[in-house]
Amino acid sequence: MVRVLVGELPAAVGRTVTVKGWVNTLRLQSKVQFVVVRDHTGMVQVTHRRGGEGDALGELLQGLTVESAVVVTGRVVANPVVKLGGLEIVPERVEVVSAAEPGLPIGPETGPEQRLNWRFLDLRRPERRLVFEVQTTVEQAMREVAAEQGCTELHTPKLMGTASESGAEVFEVGYFERKAYLAQSPQFYKQMAIAGGIDRVFEIGPVFRAEPSFTSRHATEFTGVDVELAWIDGVEDVMSFEERMLRRALELVAERHGEQIERHWGVRVVVPELPFPRLTMAEAVKRLRDAGWDPEGVREDLDPEGERLLSALVERETGHEFVFVTGFPASVRPFYHLRSAGDPAVTESFDLLWKGVEITTGAQREHRYGRLVAQAREKGMDAGPEGPLGRYLDCFRYGMPPHGGFGLGLGRVLMLALGLPSIRDAVFLFRGPNRLEP
Amino acid sequence: MVRVLVGELPAAVGRTVTVKGWVNTLRLQSKVQFVVVRDHTGMVQVTHRRGGEGDALGELLQGLTVESAVVVTGRVVANPVVKLGGLEIVPERVEVVSAAEPGLPIGPETGPEQRLNWRFLDLRRPERRLVFEVQTTVEQAMREVAAEQGCTELHTPKLMGTASESGAEVFEVGYFERKAYLAQSPQFYKQMAIAGGIDRVFEIGPVFRAEPSFTSRHATEFTGVDVELAWIDGVEDVMSFEERMLRRALELVAERHGEQIERHWGVRVVVPELPFPRLTMAEAVKRLRDAGWDPEGVREDLDPEGERLLSALVERETGHEFVFVTGFPASVRPFYHLRSAGDPAVTESFDLLWKGVEITTGAQREHRYGRLVAQAREKGMDAGPEGPLGRYLDCFRYGMPPHGGFGLGLGRVLMLALGLPSIRDAVFLFRGPNRLEP
Repeated sequence: MVRVLVGELPAAVGRTVTVKGWVNTLRLQSKVQFVVVRDHTGMVQVTHRRGGEGDALGELLQGLTVESAVVVTGRVVANPVVKLGGLEIVPERVEVVSAAEPGLPIGPETGPEQRLNWRFLDLRRPERRLVFEVQTTVEQAMREVAAEQGCTELHTPKLMGTASESGAEVFEVGYFERKAYLAQSPQFYKQMAIAGGIDRVFEIGPVFRAEPSFTSRHATEFTGVDVELAWIDGVEDVMSFEERMLRRALELVAERHGEQIERHWGVRVVVPELPFPRLTMAEAVKRLRDAGWDPEGVREDLDPEGERLLSALVERETGHEFVFVTGFPASVRPFYHLRSAGDPAVTESFDLLWKGVEITTGAQREHRYGRLVAQAREKGMDAGPEGPLGRYLDCFRYGMPPHGGFGLGLGRVLMLALGLPSIRDAVFLFRGPNRLEP
Repeated sequence: MVRVLVGELPAAVGRTVTVKGWVNTLRLQSKVQFVVVRDHTGMVQVTHRRGGEGDALGELLQGLTVESAVVVTGRVVANPVVKLGGLEIVPERVEVVSAAEPGLPIGPETGPEQRLNWRFLDLRRPERRLVFEVQTTVEQAMREVAAEQGCTELHTPKLMGTASESGAEVFEVGYFERKAYLAQSPQFYKQMAIAGGIDRVFEIGPVFRAEPSFTSRHATEFTGVDVELAWIDGVEDVMSFEERMLRRALELVAERHGEQIERHWGVRVVVPELPFPRLTMAEAVKRLRDAGWDPEGVREDLDPEGERLLSALVERETGHEFVFVTGFPASVRPFYHLRSAGDPAVTESFDLLWKGVEITTGAQREHRYGRLVAQAREKGMDAGPEGPLGRYLDCFRYGMPPHGGFGLGLGRVLMLALGLPSIRDAVFLFRGPNRLEP
């Protein structure tokens, strides 16, 4: 029989339908048996009044276990007493497609590590699955904006011949008779695409960091959203692209999932106003120091505490959850960030903070070969043609337009949008220094 | 000044505009200088009539090199003699944003390996860039269908704790104090998502194969399109999903790029009729043997020659470029493919051939724990709880619905859609046993 989704049942009252899903809860009494069946659209009560001898259906229900996969055929009956939508199914036939072993390995009290061990069971809870419905919507909105803006969707390689950006924090792969490395970001490749005449690059893909970090914001593998734009007039073009993309994403999330997010996670999705506030790093540091941050006065970069403090400060003043921090010192940015025309100690770069967490790093890039080589050498890097940067630097020798872009952590966006306690809850299967399973 | 794209120039005749792009060709004569400038939307002729002494612009143009990145400001003038759209730009100002070194490392005669070495220069040719415009369209259409069909977009991990599907052909990664492996497909993970109550899974992401293959169809890293559908009635549901997805993709490709593909690559994009032809493996083998294939009569699976022959045969008879081959013997399919109810030696599986090349493998999966374990053991695999399949098999212990899905190679689709000679031309940066650069 054709499957009817639980969410469609209100329109099916009076009809006989087939519902497919999992046994959410069981209440098996001597006279009446209640089975709540759950699919990805909701839950419905299946109510069977026990017959006497020969009540095969009643016997079957008596042997059911929670989380078994079942197919239920029966009549949809309005019943105002039933909490789940004021209707129930009076079953004619129930098929146990796949019985669950009795005694589930996780329950409501289970701690986070054990929940990750049994992630597929954890995911059956509607509020967990919601994360990936939101993810789907976020990506759809981002791609919509990317398409409007003329982006080409690329898949840059994750296997690299040299550990180019920085030797540390890179995973090494056995590659036939040699070594390969897992890409820590699509940075160099997306710039290569710009050198290849692709006007605007968009990619959503995995990023690998061999970082032994155990914070709630770090993972060794995560999904990055990367954008690179050719022929920009300045870094402002990059920020303006990103804020429009995020606004569209949150708009669509609020529209489709806002009510559910608030119900399950207690978070209201705020659609941000454009433009987002902008603050130079010099101003930010001054404001933060006034508020007591970095009492030694030695920090050149924001630390997580500074990010939280600054975000809170901006939100208090402007009511805005986002803030672009711009003009980071060259000392704390990679060699390929463009230096400001007025002050070579400052870069045309930005971070985007949301609710106290950095979700993006972006910049205009240095596109002039000579300056780029000089900046690499200044950072103590090997800029020779046979060195690890050789192939990358080649891209600047035959006409490279001005360009810039950003990288955004998708998991962090989801974590913040839903108010999840950790990035572990915002990805399908978390990967960390101690976790490669399941 | 605001950039005007070359493709927009016909609407700008009589106006002064700024165009940004690369020097495609130079013809510098004593009286007139012609510079053809190319951006991602087309090419335009810039025509400067040389003045006498003090013609600074003429001097600048005299020093230009091919492939330099330039910004040209000038008046758009209709000129029916000009081949490039009957118009030209009379320049007022030309800025060389990034000069190309003289003497490009590749030219029209360059062989494939050297072209790959300088991939970014190769990509500047419009027919090369077209591949990625088509890719963007294909993905957009596929995602459209996936969204209509209620798919959730997932990112499954590429780092795995065990080399689960098969020990061979897997890349090993140094992972802190232990080993990790690169996923050869999202197969087990997308089934885990089904076990997690995600109704329909969609993913586009990288896939890694440590296969020392040097054919035109193989790469060590490629982009896979993966779909997995819960609660199917049979493998037919999976094929029907895939054919609709491919039809929509080719429809949109034909609409947006058909003319350009035909012009640049000489291939007509055919929008396939639904349903695609279907042929059981038993029939296929019989037909092929009648045509002289496998004279020893020993093959149980199709080889590339068989695929070509079969495709040609079906196209001759039906006029259709695609064919689903169904019901492969269990001996040549993985342990998790569902066996046919009538004949356990046959699986509920399919391959999809297009123009003689296999682009997809799909199947309904065995969802019953006991049978799955038995089938794994039958293939000589360790099905114990601590073995490499332990975590995967756990997913079947607590209620697994009937499900099935497929994996599609995006590069192969592009290669065939454009008639490219090799997969190397269908990916941004090819990775093979001998190639990790650039």
